[in-house]
Amino acid sequence: MKKDILVLLPTEARHREKLEAAGAGCRFTYSRPDEVSFEQIQAANVIIGQPKPDMLRASENLEWLQTASAGVDPYIVPGVLAAKTVLTNATGAYSKAVSEHAFALTLMLIKKLHLYRDEQLKNHWSDRGTVTSLSDSTVVVVGLGDIGRAYARMVKAMGAYVIGVKRRGGACPDYVDELVLTQDIDSILPRADVIMSVLPNTAETRYLYTDERFDKMKDSAVFVNCGRGNAVSAEVLYRALKEHKISAAAVDVVEAEPLPADSPLWGLENLVITPHISGFFHLPETFERIVDIAAGNLAAYLAGKELRNVVDFATGYAK
Amino acid sequence: MKKDILVLLPTEARHREKLEAAGAGCRFTYSRPDEVSFEQIQAANVIIGQPKPDMLRASENLEWLQTASAGVDPYIVPGVLAAKTVLTNATGAYSKAVSEHAFALTLMLIKKLHLYRDEQLKNHWSDRGTVTSLSDSTVVVVGLGDIGRAYARMVKAMGAYVIGVKRRGGACPDYVDELVLTQDIDSILPRADVIMSVLPNTAETRYLYTDERFDKMKDSAVFVNCGRGNAVSAEVLYRALKEHKISAAAVDVVEAEPLPADSPLWGLENLVITPHISGFFHLPETFERIVDIAAGNLAAYLAGKELRNVVDFATGYAK
Repeated sequence: MKKDILVLLPTEARHREKLEAAGAGCRFTYSRPDEVSFEQIQAANVIIGQPKPDMLRASENLEWLQTASAGVDPYIVPGVLAAKTVLTNATGAYSKAVSEHAFALTLMLIKKLHLYRDEQLKNHWSDRGTVTSLSDSTVVVVGLGDIGRAYARMVKAMGAYVIGVKRRGGACPDYVDELVLTQDIDSILPRADVIMSVLPNTAETRYLYTDERFDKMKDSAVFVNCGRGNAVSAEVLYRALKEHKISAAAVDVVEAEPLPADSPLWGLENLVITPHISGFFHLPETFERIVDIAAGNLAAYLAGKELRNVVDFATGYAK
Repeated sequence: MKKDILVLLPTEARHREKLEAAGAGCRFTYSRPDEVSFEQIQAANVIIGQPKPDMLRASENLEWLQTASAGVDPYIVPGVLAAKTVLTNATGAYSKAVSEHAFALTLMLIKKLHLYRDEQLKNHWSDRGTVTSLSDSTVVVVGLGDIGRAYARMVKAMGAYVIGVKRRGGACPDYVDELVLTQDIDSILPRADVIMSVLPNTAETRYLYTDERFDKMKDSAVFVNCGRGNAVSAEVLYRALKEHKISAAAVDVVEAEPLPADSPLWGLENLVITPHISGFFHLPETFERIVDIAAGNLAAYLAGKELRNVVDFATGYAK
């Protein structure tokens, strides 16, 4: 039986060639999430991309949804996907883009480049004092998926002592000096010079960073969040920085996005905010990787083989 | 004969112990450049630190001056030091601090973090578009001394293709993919995604970056200068950025320092300015390294052995 494949990605010719080679014999339809019709969605056996979740409800034909994102929160809401529908995400596609963004933010903070930018905007040639080096730092990487591991490799290459924090035990990669379980995170926060968090949105990770946990950190520590914004509430983050519980922070994600224009977070000198752009398709390679994941999965799907990045609805993680 | 050693560094007890162990039997005097007397300067056989150049003129006793800086421009002006006086600098002490600052500036530019800081100061959650990765970049490192080499190692670890530019040929380090002579720099500028310049102030390096050379660069290229400001004139730098000959630049040094408050450079969105702070003593390890160089040289001096970092007055470089 010919499958109907609906592609909702901004593909160019070479991407379509790659997908159609993987899905030889299938019927391909290309559209965009904001242009696709309800009928097109309902007719599809396979969707590659990010349809509006409400348009998926009641779809009887959809066997498999491959998202372009790593996070799949809107699609695991009960009632959006039928029980038979397989959900795969694009975990892995974003590791380079997000890890490099987090790494650049880390260096910006410890070298005080945000403060120098502020001085520049006032035409001030003004010395902001001492800085630190990753080579003398203990870096705690919270979330050791593909992004966390890529980041760990980079800070290790700069000479840092790296502590990885993950849900489950396992082998310690050679670029990680110590492995700690998430449930034991309190034990290592006092040692951290840098805390880089890249956690998905789950019940366990929500509001993980409490007032008490910021209290446990060094007042010289810097905190970077490139996972999901609700790992720390806006109030807790504000207090941590306003009261100088830590030295500085940089966040690509916040609890409510977009961050409201009247949020007091904007005006904190020791907080750097980027508008959830570390991933997306801002690094061209990210999109190429997404298409590669989708094409690989499409070939596997048609051959009846196991798909990559199948999401566990209970945890929101790839299994 | 007991030597008179004048130390003009902000030493702590452990630094003084290290120096006095190396200079056992010598008379040590500690002061600061802005407090030391003319008589103290004139009495010294050895000075470790940065006296005001004019106070050195006519000194008959000074046999050796060890600076705390890498650049020694003020001390090679004719008439400042007697012909018999040996001058050594602190080349090597700054490599970690300056290379890491240059590396952080590079990432800031290619990840557009300066633009996001500007948006933040306006409470704008605003997407600034695509970014690039060092892993897909050709990085040209102009000046392959200890700072340039340390920087080359870092960008190589991030996956960059590295081209080193130096005055003289020689073996190509394994973290440099290609080596080019300074006289041939025009041939590789069109290939550069990043140009990081860390040249000392010499007749050959002054105004090396001309309008014509910026014209040769890709309009997507970024330029970082952490050497000396007069490698590019303020006017040429302004034109390159205002006319978007290149995408962005970051400079820790400018032609005239401090940069005048009315300089048009301050207001360029695509220029990041830090106030010549990449070196100095902002990374604590820098000062430790300076004391180590001075102590090592003091022991060698007293033993009649060859000193490290002896400056060639003709070039301003360590020999």
